[in-house]
Amino acid sequence: MRNIKLLIQYEGTRYQGWQKQKASDGTIQGKLETLLSKMCGEPIELQASGRTDSGVHARGQVANFHTGNDMPIADMLTYMNRYLPEDIAVVNITEAAPRFHSRLNTSGKHYCYCVINSSIPDVFMRRYALEVPEPLNVDEMERAAACLVGQHDFKAFTSTKKGKKPTVRTIESITIDREGSKLFFHFVGNGFLHHMVRIIMGTLLEVGRGERTPESMQAILASQSRENAGMLVPAKGLTLMEVYY
Amino acid sequence: MRNIKLLIQYEGTRYQGWQKQKASDGTIQGKLETLLSKMCGEPIELQASGRTDSGVHARGQVANFHTGNDMPIADMLTYMNRYLPEDIAVVNITEAAPRFHSRLNTSGKHYCYCVINSSIPDVFMRRYALEVPEPLNVDEMERAAACLVGQHDFKAFTSTKKGKKPTVRTIESITIDREGSKLFFHFVGNGFLHHMVRIIMGTLLEVGRGERTPESMQAILASQSRENAGMLVPAKGLTLMEVYY
Repeated sequence: MRNIKLLIQYEGTRYQGWQKQKASDGTIQGKLETLLSKMCGEPIELQASGRTDSGVHARGQVANFHTGNDMPIADMLTYMNRYLPEDIAVVNITEAAPRFHSRLNTSGKHYCYCVINSSIPDVFMRRYALEVPEPLNVDEMERAAACLVGQHDFKAFTSTKKGKKPTVRTIESITIDREGSKLFFHFVGNGFLHHMVRIIMGTLLEVGRGERTPESMQAILASQSRENAGMLVPAKGLTLMEVYY
Repeated sequence: MRNIKLLIQYEGTRYQGWQKQKASDGTIQGKLETLLSKMCGEPIELQASGRTDSGVHARGQVANFHTGNDMPIADMLTYMNRYLPEDIAVVNITEAAPRFHSRLNTSGKHYCYCVINSSIPDVFMRRYALEVPEPLNVDEMERAAACLVGQHDFKAFTSTKKGKKPTVRTIESITIDREGSKLFFHFVGNGFLHHMVRIIMGTLLEVGRGERTPESMQAILASQSRENAGMLVPAKGLTLMEVYY
């Protein structure tokens, strides 16, 4: 059996997220598996580095599958991009080591959240960014972000209710890049809990608007309580940039 | 009467171009005039720097209108962006001198055409760029482009049939910027004929693929004959970047 690794790009706008669902074909995994199964002539199960929620985009999602089919890699790439919908693309295909596993072997991820900090809409970014018209204090947001870097229990920053799974993660860096009225928030870490980036973003924006102090991050972390963190920002500003192995 | 100048951004994908048509409301001018007329409480006619074709985008289209309404500029901006569809935005509104005319006072324009030079699609650029999978020789395209800079009769590079209107224009510069697999072709000139940028682009791409020599540009210009130039490339890669006054 070959183990095939895909590098995948998608605009999440039209989809109910990565993960296949019983009733519907409106998922990215569903679209890809249907096409891979046709291409390989056998049922294909695709394992991604992790799910992305409905509306979240990816520039570098990684997934792998096993197949007995001997189609050359380059032909697979051409086939996939010919038949995939225009908002999903396979950017690269490689043969992976037999034991490679897209999720279990992950060492880290890079997410980016984009904010248009202006009362003027940007029509070209409207599907990929959140519009925040109020002035944002970037220095204060950077100070708040610095409190979250390192190893912490991020239980306060996840929507997951059941308290059984471990919620300790390490954030290696949070950086904020400004390009005109666009703010790009880059998050790199060894793993992110469900909704973690979007809840951190909501909290940072409250700091940026002056509604919280940067120092309040410590108290939120210590409380381990979701209601102390900020609001969940919309999915459309979030993009999975890269998965590290 | 006030003379109000708008700076407008739009994604042209859904529209039948700038210019209002009798039967349909699917034009950018139509959308804007309907809303402006409602805002001002009187019929508004909007004069743009020039039309853009169906599918062409704009980051810096300029248009002006006259009104007796005394609504403050800032309120107009807010009103427009609240009610415009999400693929049209008014980026700036200013009071113009009484005699200012968006089309007649134009001194030049800047267009950009984007090409994804790869067999791998870019899902985030799919509405804003043409995909060209074959390798392109940028040096040769730059040499061909240099032949077009300056004052020339561009009759061979327009779709306009009737030979009465003047077809002499001055191109100040054509520059090609590469960013990964993206190629941005920037055109700056005192004016562009109907389809001129897109026919020049089609011709440059044929040079880039080795189907024409850069020197053949001179013969095409001299022939003044449309059939000697290259094909018309799709509208989606074209964006009106700026209008100069």
